[in-house]
Amino acid sequence: MTSTPTMRPAPTGATRLAAVIGDPVRHSLSPAIHNAAFAVLGLDWVYVALTVAAGRGGDAVAAMRVLGIEGLSVTMPHKAAVAAAVDRRTAVAERLGVVNCVFTDGDELVGDSTDGDGFVRSLAHDNGLSLAGARVMILGTGGAAKAIIEAVGRARPAELVVVSRDLARAVDVAATLAPGTGRAGAAAEAGAMDVVINATPVGMAGGPDAEGLPLPAEFLTSTHHVIDIVYNPRVTPLLAAAERAGATTVGGVGMLIHQAALAFEHWTGQAAPVDAMAAAAFAYHREPSRLSNHGE
Amino acid sequence: MTSTPTMRPAPTGATRLAAVIGDPVRHSLSPAIHNAAFAVLGLDWVYVALTVAAGRGGDAVAAMRVLGIEGLSVTMPHKAAVAAAVDRRTAVAERLGVVNCVFTDGDELVGDSTDGDGFVRSLAHDNGLSLAGARVMILGTGGAAKAIIEAVGRARPAELVVVSRDLARAVDVAATLAPGTGRAGAAAEAGAMDVVINATPVGMAGGPDAEGLPLPAEFLTSTHHVIDIVYNPRVTPLLAAAERAGATTVGGVGMLIHQAALAFEHWTGQAAPVDAMAAAAFAYHREPSRLSNHGE
Repeated sequence: MTSTPTMRPAPTGATRLAAVIGDPVRHSLSPAIHNAAFAVLGLDWVYVALTVAAGRGGDAVAAMRVLGIEGLSVTMPHKAAVAAAVDRRTAVAERLGVVNCVFTDGDELVGDSTDGDGFVRSLAHDNGLSLAGARVMILGTGGAAKAIIEAVGRARPAELVVVSRDLARAVDVAATLAPGTGRAGAAAEAGAMDVVINATPVGMAGGPDAEGLPLPAEFLTSTHHVIDIVYNPRVTPLLAAAERAGATTVGGVGMLIHQAALAFEHWTGQAAPVDAMAAAAFAYHREPSRLSNHGE
Repeated sequence: MTSTPTMRPAPTGATRLAAVIGDPVRHSLSPAIHNAAFAVLGLDWVYVALTVAAGRGGDAVAAMRVLGIEGLSVTMPHKAAVAAAVDRRTAVAERLGVVNCVFTDGDELVGDSTDGDGFVRSLAHDNGLSLAGARVMILGTGGAAKAIIEAVGRARPAELVVVSRDLARAVDVAATLAPGTGRAGAAAEAGAMDVVINATPVGMAGGPDAEGLPLPAEFLTSTHHVIDIVYNPRVTPLLAAAERAGATTVGGVGMLIHQAALAFEHWTGQAAPVDAMAAAAFAYHREPSRLSNHGE
């Protein structure tokens, strides 16, 4: 229970089911977010978290089909296995090779990856920030970073610089996912950027480098938009350093909300009530026992 | 939505999932009954109905395992397929060859058939009626009838007479499921009985013989307890005739509640709040659009 639970009529036989699969998944914010959205629109759906063991992602897609589950969110460690198991992938999911949500289209199960578009949409919706013409640095080349690189690459930035400790990987990811726009670069180039995005786990509570910064603080300036996809803590070491530098800062919950909103729209065909979804995420997130950046 | 929905906190990531599988299943009373029970005990579970096509019952058991669904109710047409697919069956389920609920025991999925024990328990709990020493006639040899015959046979009746249009089948069912106690007989023997149980679909709204009686009205007397497992309508043609004869009458919702209560106890390890479950069933049942004896 959260401190401000959404109250809903209990499900009946007519209620439709959606779920997030992952492991770990019990601390996911997704049930709070989606159930709040169903409530505000009066949709007779319910959303739960289901622990699915590593290696069983493809079986979970089969299970979705057998049981008539009408929407699936997919988190670690199943994003690639589910991409391989669905009937069809969207162009973005095809390019990334991963799926974070599954929806039905007639008899087909379709996989999409909404993380990147959710990220770009959250900046526009929540922060009035368009990336068109912007000089953008993205730190990281993991799964979340790749989704963001791919989507930012389509957002017509003036520059898209991918920074990784593994330069060869940065070169490859930039060329593959943002061809013609992305290139590998170094954190020291930050001074020439408008937007700096941390898409690494550095700064995540409970993570391997919870107190760390993904780039040196002295590279941050007051002209930067600094965005951290880590949402726990709400103010990460990076965001704190960016604030001290006078930069504009953006936390990671917006991406979480908007990737969920895009999935919600696939499932229900209705515009997602993103403000209600955000309120639910923030209410839930305030619960100390729930603090986790995992499970999404 | 029912006219008196149970209000619950929306599920979070911690919420456990139980479900009924069947086809048709959308009009099942089970979600209303079980969600009311979870609510009254403050258990963080949610129960939904999942349409599973004929021939996919075994796959649904596999799906339950993959997704970590913690309780399953099973209705038509899956009771035999699920019995074949679980890791282990209770003695009753083994004897009947069907399963109406699945629960976890460590790593194993165990199938039970609670219809018969639910029937006997409902008579004791709701009606103060013990079958020990009673002369009992059971009309029907279908799935529900077999479960009742098996359970009544264990309840030490003085007599157990099975009546069917198919005499050979009545002989076989009585000998197999109530050895030493049960025998085939004729409806005309009703005068010598204490308890007459209709376990056929005769009298069920929307069924093949909705206006019919499973035995001639003139066989009913004021000393009878007449029990109809058909619960829609609440007063079946049989129960109306029994009332006119001055008999004590018992409708079919009690069996529905108590078979669910036994499943609930398997899943949660807690005593089922049968009064709250019955109230939910009756509230739901009053909705004209929900009237159905199917889906259980």
